[in-house]
Amino acid sequence: MNVKVDPKGVWSDIQAIKKSSPLVHNITNYVVMESTANGLLAIGASPVMAHAVDEVEDMIKIANSLVLNIGTLSPAWIQAMTLSLKAANFKGIPVVLDPVGIGATPYRTKTTHSLLADGKVTAIRGNASEIASLTDSHITTKGVDSLLNAIDCHDQARILASKIKCIVWMSGSTDVITDGKLSILVHNGHPLMSKVTGMGCMATAITGAFLAINQDILLGCAHAAIFMGVAGEIASTNCKGPGSFKLEFIDVLYNLSLDQIEERIRLDLV
Amino acid sequence: MNVKVDPKGVWSDIQAIKKSSPLVHNITNYVVMESTANGLLAIGASPVMAHAVDEVEDMIKIANSLVLNIGTLSPAWIQAMTLSLKAANFKGIPVVLDPVGIGATPYRTKTTHSLLADGKVTAIRGNASEIASLTDSHITTKGVDSLLNAIDCHDQARILASKIKCIVWMSGSTDVITDGKLSILVHNGHPLMSKVTGMGCMATAITGAFLAINQDILLGCAHAAIFMGVAGEIASTNCKGPGSFKLEFIDVLYNLSLDQIEERIRLDLV
Amino acid sequence: MNVKVDPKGVWSDIQAIKKSSPLVHNITNYVVMESTANGLLAIGASPVMAHAVDEVEDMIKIANSLVLNIGTLSPAWIQAMTLSLKAANFKGIPVVLDPVGIGATPYRTKTTHSLLADGKVTAIRGNASEIASLTDSHITTKGVDSLLNAIDCHDQARILASKIKCIVWMSGSTDVITDGKLSILVHNGHPLMSKVTGMGCMATAITGAFLAINQDILLGCAHAAIFMGVAGEIASTNCKGPGSFKLEFIDVLYNLSLDQIEERIRLDLV
Repeated sequence: MNVKVDPKGVWSDIQAIKKSSPLVHNITNYVVMESTANGLLAIGASPVMAHAVDEVEDMIKIANSLVLNIGTLSPAWIQAMTLSLKAANFKGIPVVLDPVGIGATPYRTKTTHSLLADGKVTAIRGNASEIASLTDSHITTKGVDSLLNAIDCHDQARILASKIKCIVWMSGSTDVITDGKLSILVHNGHPLMSKVTGMGCMATAITGAFLAINQDILLGCAHAAIFMGVAGEIASTNCKGPGSFKLEFIDVLYNLSLDQIEERIRLDLV
Repeated sequence: MNVKVDPKGVWSDIQAIKKSSPLVHNITNYVVMESTANGLLAIGASPVMAHAVDEVEDMIKIANSLVLNIGTLSPAWIQAMTLSLKAANFKGIPVVLDPVGIGATPYRTKTTHSLLADGKVTAIRGNASEIASLTDSHITTKGVDSLLNAIDCHDQARILASKIKCIVWMSGSTDVITDGKLSILVHNGHPLMSKVTGMGCMATAITGAFLAINQDILLGCAHAAIFMGVAGEIASTNCKGPGSFKLEFIDVLYNLSLDQIEERIRLDLV
Repeated sequence: MNVKVDPKGVWSDIQAIKKSSPLVHNITNYVVMESTANGLLAIGASPVMAHAVDEVEDMIKIANSLVLNIGTLSPAWIQAMTLSLKAANFKGIPVVLDPVGIGATPYRTKTTHSLLADGKVTAIRGNASEIASLTDSHITTKGVDSLLNAIDCHDQARILASKIKCIVWMSGSTDVITDGKLSILVHNGHPLMSKVTGMGCMATAITGAFLAINQDILLGCAHAAIFMGVAGEIASTNCKGPGSFKLEFIDVLYNLSLDQIEERIRLDLV
């Protein structure tokens, strides 16, 4: 195991994002668009949301990464996702996929598999139910919330990563980030993160920013997971509920220091 | 009048929502999707937003209630609303309708009447202008804000409830919740609630959570109204304007105690 | 130069908005709908969002101004924008256009020029890259963020205003508001405003409210710019990052006093 995950690596990526301000093209769901944009802005990235079939390929020409999120689908959006995925593959920029609620409806399951067949995805981020459902079509999800624990689904994450040849980041109380062989377990985070909509979607979008500046995909995903988890812990120390948590979280994304990462980082390599 | 509305009943519903975390399927407007999801998460419910014609019926299969909100319509969304309404009726789960801005345009009026003709709605929540406009097509609204007082439109609410055979919750400085015969007047709330977008839409969505766990529809709606009103009062005590009010409101939804409800509840049965 | 820009004029407009609560019809992008609505509510205006081809002309009948924002386009929305623009021109209410991300894709550029050909726009608000791109099609933008400084593009703003015969408000660290001959430079504002999504879009929407009550278009735009800039400065004094800034900003919009405007206003007429 030659991979080295440490606070300085996370910090280096954060500095690179602030410096180059990568343009992250999001085709994401309506619910989380604003918080996703605000999360990306807070870390120093440059978000753009565009979904029209008539412009997504042109937007990819100036984008540094692509984030696809199936949270609120419709036929035209699926077409735009497919076009932008192919354009991103052609240009060679990273693509992060968030299969929100896959398993909740056949439409989401079918769309996700169709996207995976149409192009190459660099990383997939989802909760345990979603990742398990991608591996085993008999597993269903309860809407967009997970019924499963990430650690219990470690094998499914590994299988999926090997099969798709991408990095899988499965979120939960412990996050699992794996390339199918090596897994990084990130123990950071806070339960309030599941009481604010779009935290998972923001994690996916932020991964788009990390992969835009870090070519080591496994490390980039792990750094994004550590960043989100540590920020969640710090935000929770200063809040009374999910309303104040959401505000604090954005402020922490903007202000997070290397010291804070060093103090809180908790991970295992397995 | 055998109905008994008291703090313990409200509290019992809140505990039931936290325990069973009902899946509330929302087909709602773009403006309020995020705050609606955050409100539902804060009270312990599980929100899902899905509007594609290709998946709404499947989503109903796993949902515990359906919320229809006409705030930002388009043809495909109306089709999805109709399909999901019929599926919800077939499955027997409650449906809450929010006729946002009915009376502002013929399109909204026609769509609302068409939905009411296509299926059975369990409850309708709207402001006084909207409820009055549903009863009397000559009454128009100013966009999505009410020009009328709820108490003054008490009769229209009763007529509508009797005609549609549903519960009508008309919001205002005093809320009227009626089945056409008995009316519960809830005097809780705060003027700042009208200075934050989506508070009415959140009330509608939260009603979806209450009706998912309380089969007494009149009581379920009254409990939701008391919950919203009391939370609004408490949030207002700790804020400087609509920005901080919105944050406080979500925190209060998450933390509200039985004591707080007992201390503040103000209602009349007429 | 007979124009007089002073705190009392800004204050007079704010009072007029609170008093008459103009209905501002927004056809805007998904990302900013909620914050736009909350900004308009905070200043006392009445926002409505409606985009269906079947209802936009009816909504214009009750609206006091129209705001068009091309941030997340699709064919049906462009059609709705065109219809509502013509209806607004026919009725004689002001129209404010925000060419979000023009220059990022040909689709946005083409749509903006097509709107300008189809009807009369009262004011255009954008960042320097967007305004420059509208004047010179060889200038491109980086997604929705500006690569240029407003002061450096003063000439382009003047050319555009003269050509279109409208007011151009170009946002930046110094804002330029011009009718092509006279320019008002507003030096208020704070860098955190660029770290929260939708601040520019909110400025555009708020201009819709100011133009609904002030028939002097140049002054109305300048007052809106001063209001936004002063509010941004005050909000920044009481925040830790973009999360708290956003909340504070809404509270300040709601509470801003004449004293605060007098204390902070900084402008030049050139």
